[in-house]
Amino acid sequence: MFLHRRDVTIEWGDCDPAGIVFYPRYFAMFDASTVALFGAALGYNKFEMLSRFSIIGIPMVDTGAKFLHPSRFGDVISIESQIASFRRTSFNVQHRVLRGETLAIEAHETRVWAGRDPQDPARIKGVAIPDEVKEAFAR
Amino acid sequence: MFLHRRDVTIEWGDCDPAGIVFYPRYFAMFDASTVALFGAALGYNKFEMLSRFSIIGIPMVDTGAKFLHPSRFGDVISIESQIASFRRTSFNVQHRVLRGETLAIEAHETRVWAGRDPQDPARIKGVAIPDEVKEAFAR
Amino acid sequence: MFLHRRDVTIEWGDCDPAGIVFYPRYFAMFDASTVALFGAALGYNKFEMLSRFSIIGIPMVDTGAKFLHPSRFGDVISIESQIASFRRTSFNVQHRVLRGETLAIEAHETRVWAGRDPQDPARIKGVAIPDEVKEAFAR
Amino acid sequence: MFLHRRDVTIEWGDCDPAGIVFYPRYFAMFDASTVALFGAALGYNKFEMLSRFSIIGIPMVDTGAKFLHPSRFGDVISIESQIASFRRTSFNVQHRVLRGETLAIEAHETRVWAGRDPQDPARIKGVAIPDEVKEAFAR
Repeated sequence: MFLHRRDVTIEWGDCDPAGIVFYPRYFAMFDASTVALFGAALGYNKFEMLSRFSIIGIPMVDTGAKFLHPSRFGDVISIESQIASFRRTSFNVQHRVLRGETLAIEAHETRVWAGRDPQDPARIKGVAIPDEVKEAFAR
Repeated sequence: MFLHRRDVTIEWGDCDPAGIVFYPRYFAMFDASTVALFGAALGYNKFEMLSRFSIIGIPMVDTGAKFLHPSRFGDVISIESQIASFRRTSFNVQHRVLRGETLAIEAHETRVWAGRDPQDPARIKGVAIPDEVKEAFAR
Repeated sequence: MFLHRRDVTIEWGDCDPAGIVFYPRYFAMFDASTVALFGAALGYNKFEMLSRFSIIGIPMVDTGAKFLHPSRFGDVISIESQIASFRRTSFNVQHRVLRGETLAIEAHETRVWAGRDPQDPARIKGVAIPDEVKEAFAR
Repeated sequence: MFLHRRDVTIEWGDCDPAGIVFYPRYFAMFDASTVALFGAALGYNKFEMLSRFSIIGIPMVDTGAKFLHPSRFGDVISIESQIASFRRTSFNVQHRVLRGETLAIEAHETRVWAGRDPQDPARIKGVAIPDEVKEAFAR
């Protein structure tokens, strides 16, 4: 399926006193990669995606990562992201981080295509992922 | 085994445009909770822990979380953390996040007790966790 | 005028490879301190404040800080915050960070009491700060 | 003097519940822009810069910013950065953020070229900025 790759420079502020990336920063990078993946497949940005489909976001319900090799400020990593599967209201994403030829991190995500609950707007509720969205990734 | 609980106020800056916590912020909270767990068991802070045992940190090798209920700015969550198991150079941590009586998140971590590689100081290497540390959690 | 003080533990993840706080983290702490200052004066949290006064936030228009002494993970700093002045739609805040007796940072903020522009909801617009809010700080 | 410009995409995780950038994130972007400015002038990254000149970093002593126009996720901003002046052990940086033709933010920084204090390695101390560094910006 559709794969998106982007290069990310590890910044000084991404790193901790051991000189390597503070791992929560990787999850922020993965979030941006998932957004970039949808942007590349759909052809418009997340702001327009939310407005077009009347959703409030694609919140995380389950995520995990294996950190195989640390990176430090000044390194450039490559993040490869793709949809692993779509279900009715949720979907899985996989990320692979490469530093040169070395596989540095493997991560997975389960997210929900989420709107406001019509019964209670303070609550978030999974809604059906439009076919138009699924088809954009099948190309 | 020794359990540590701390309350965390969800800040405006922890939240995203959907009004709920941007999930990478939870991993930063869990990192601080693991540090607080060691601090409570050992009786001194991480700065002193690193210096006393000549380690450079306790880097993450594997982590995951299930997000069951979202929280928003102004909410106060309670994070309960404990060591699940110690091995020779690594250990597992479990975190449970509660909002009131509701289980909001479950997370797990595998971390390494890490020093500089004596062969190559640019590299990080697992070293044996001191008995003194393991015993502090058995109390 | 009403002064709010809170203690903040410097976390590992707040620090950079030099082992001291990555300064953007201080601005996040100041944002939380300004929220805590309003919370202490008004008696309810920011979520309720926004909803009660139909505003979208108190965005920053001008801020600055002098960093006099660095802090490192494990340090506990004390942040003292107070309103320096209220104007019709904006206000100034001052923060002083102390580590023990040492003044570590001085910072100032100008923020706007902001709503949606009724002409164009995509835009943010300063609105008059309610007397009820100003009076809560005069006590 | 030497000017460096880079484009930054505003990510979902950079934004707050008002849907606009949480301003501490801008300071992280400015930090990365100052690093990129030195990298562009010197021809190598910060990791190599620290090692080559035996410094521990270029910590902030004074910074400020005026936020003229908010940005939101999906926006692409352009950050223009340049050295305003070099002194013996410190220097000033200016950043201008543009969104299209609109000036969105103006920011300034005073930083120190810092090493370990030889009398007390736990302390940070300004050291003379090498002529080689100053000359790299004069080109």
